[in-house]
Amino acid sequence: MTRRVAAVAAGTSKKWGVYPGTYRDLISEAGKATFDSNPEIHPRDIQGFILASVFPERSIFQSHVATLAAETVGVTPTKIFQRVENMCGSGTIAIRTAYMAIASGLCDVVMVVGAEKMHTPQPVETYMNMLAGVDREYEGALGVTAPVQFALAAQAHMLKYGTTHEQLAQVSVKNHAHAVNNPYAHFPKSCTLEEVLSSKPVTTPFNILECSPISDGSAGMILMSEEKAREYTDKPVFILGTGQAASGFNYANVPSDLSDWTMLKQAAQDAYKMAGIGPNDIDVAEVHDCFSISEIIIMEELGFSEKGKGGEFVLQGRSDYGGDVVINPRGGLLGCGHPLGATGVAQGVEIFRQLRGEAGLRQVEGAEIGLGHNLSGVSEHHVLIYGRGDL
Amino acid sequence: MTRRVAAVAAGTSKKWGVYPGTYRDLISEAGKATFDSNPEIHPRDIQGFILASVFPERSIFQSHVATLAAETVGVTPTKIFQRVENMCGSGTIAIRTAYMAIASGLCDVVMVVGAEKMHTPQPVETYMNMLAGVDREYEGALGVTAPVQFALAAQAHMLKYGTTHEQLAQVSVKNHAHAVNNPYAHFPKSCTLEEVLSSKPVTTPFNILECSPISDGSAGMILMSEEKAREYTDKPVFILGTGQAASGFNYANVPSDLSDWTMLKQAAQDAYKMAGIGPNDIDVAEVHDCFSISEIIIMEELGFSEKGKGGEFVLQGRSDYGGDVVINPRGGLLGCGHPLGATGVAQGVEIFRQLRGEAGLRQVEGAEIGLGHNLSGVSEHHVLIYGRGDL
Repeated sequence: MTRRVAAVAAGTSKKWGVYPGTYRDLISEAGKATFDSNPEIHPRDIQGFILASVFPERSIFQSHVATLAAETVGVTPTKIFQRVENMCGSGTIAIRTAYMAIASGLCDVVMVVGAEKMHTPQPVETYMNMLAGVDREYEGALGVTAPVQFALAAQAHMLKYGTTHEQLAQVSVKNHAHAVNNPYAHFPKSCTLEEVLSSKPVTTPFNILECSPISDGSAGMILMSEEKAREYTDKPVFILGTGQAASGFNYANVPSDLSDWTMLKQAAQDAYKMAGIGPNDIDVAEVHDCFSISEIIIMEELGFSEKGKGGEFVLQGRSDYGGDVVINPRGGLLGCGHPLGATGVAQGVEIFRQLRGEAGLRQVEGAEIGLGHNLSGVSEHHVLIYGRGDL
Repeated sequence: MTRRVAAVAAGTSKKWGVYPGTYRDLISEAGKATFDSNPEIHPRDIQGFILASVFPERSIFQSHVATLAAETVGVTPTKIFQRVENMCGSGTIAIRTAYMAIASGLCDVVMVVGAEKMHTPQPVETYMNMLAGVDREYEGALGVTAPVQFALAAQAHMLKYGTTHEQLAQVSVKNHAHAVNNPYAHFPKSCTLEEVLSSKPVTTPFNILECSPISDGSAGMILMSEEKAREYTDKPVFILGTGQAASGFNYANVPSDLSDWTMLKQAAQDAYKMAGIGPNDIDVAEVHDCFSISEIIIMEELGFSEKGKGGEFVLQGRSDYGGDVVINPRGGLLGCGHPLGATGVAQGVEIFRQLRGEAGLRQVEGAEIGLGHNLSGVSEHHVLIYGRGDL
């Protein structure tokens, strides 16, 4: 029996979008927000530090960023410190790494920060950096970029299951509506189905309002062993389960129909098994809606919706407040933005707040179990399940 | 009591130096060598995959390299996969992460690969990439690069302890002599004290033969839980202890005299304590001799030599075959090269071979306990202690 691990503090940078300060400034905002969320914790209590950040080498010309970030938030980890990177899912991996550090017994108190400064002085460079996240040599350089990969998944899903563009667009309508209750969102602004369907086309079938924006942002979380956590809060949020699976890197190697995300199914099954629960036990979920289709397939593979019925599920309001499970109360990547390394950590921050009843206007009443899901392309998935520790 | 973790396979790419192939080719060499070292293991047995690589974003314009590498070596990890980066110490951190993944119970079988393609078509770019590894904004851009940082440490040590240039140079003589027995070394060629002292000056007091070269290279290791390891080999090499400590990032913030590496002392103490041993129990060590001075201070902080007496220790042959402890039998970073992400993994490969009696001409007779040490600057240290599992 390994040790239980709980989150005891969490926070994000204030306003996601185009951040005017430096990478260090951005990291420091997450650090301050995280410590502010639990005044019992002093920076000197931190024994470990994990940073999720994808391409500071390109965006600010700096490698070796874990200790840069630790120094910036004012901690001196003397048990573990490292940066993790796995493109869009890096934030969830950072939390998993903190979990492993504590569960394995290497230390008791670990801080996680996710941060990404996506905007560079020259917009073309920002897009080039994103290109380096797919298989640049064999696919990205030939046009098979992220929007194209997910568009192909959408087309496969529409063909196989009869999913409609209206159903896809409803994901954007819901998540943008949620973002209105999140003052830190990149786009805290609702939109109608008509607005989504008539927004600028990007790649068939996506219009611009179905694509997550390029955003700067940061987020932080502090995790502790159960014993330590009880010293610092009476509302710890436990990590109950986690799973991660990938089938490969090159998009051409995806072994299944593009509309079936078998690796997500496997990662979810591992997480549910570890937590000893099933999809019906999840009250609130933060999932990786990088494009509208993503949330639909994710709901299916997580077991919230029947396979192929994700489109109906969202149209019927079953993924919204009052439905089966509230998905993306923070506004999702579509409404809140997607600063790569920060996204998974910010998802964790939202679940932390929801399970402590501290989510304000976004609160899911009585939420006891929450799920965070990140992906790093169609074939790589990362799942965390959190549970209230005060029951 | 957490689960014990053992290495069961290990290998490196063939010839370190200027690698003519692609990043994928380089990774694939480490994969093949690792699987070749233990034919009992099939790629489908691998549940987890950790990649150490520092700046593929710059050297080959590719992020998201963990699954690229997994695909390249032919494994499909469905429990854990991630890239770790902490500049020069990334390789040791990758092995630590594999340790945590197994000890925490998330999985049983993890492959680690470290790989770095340092040479770029334009040499100036290679040096610029190295610049991104120190605090580029506040220090690197102003000239406080790695050679300068370590030269300042050397000057401090010479001033405080009376260490001589001859003593520093003897580190290079010893390690270059060791490299002669390593056909994969970047420079498998011995040199005399006079040659070191009359080689081209780089930064006072270092001459070029006291500085580790820019090398491409890769290395791999497979780790398993004790139970699994016993199924695949009768000579497992256990991880007995590990430690990691940092005081900060910015060089100006180093809290101690530059000749005292207090963070290494702390990381070593943690590792010794976890292993239940002391420095006198170590038979062979692979340590981070990025510059000649490094090995001297490392021997002191690891407790092999008295503080301030590291220079005498090496001159007296106490860190060579027949001495107290054999340091850097593979040739060290000075003789073998320093492909950032690969270095720590390759150190582990050497200790693995030494403890199994498979190190050929480099064999340290009767070696039972070995130590690997990486640093990521003067103030960041990573230590692993390995022990024979067949006794």
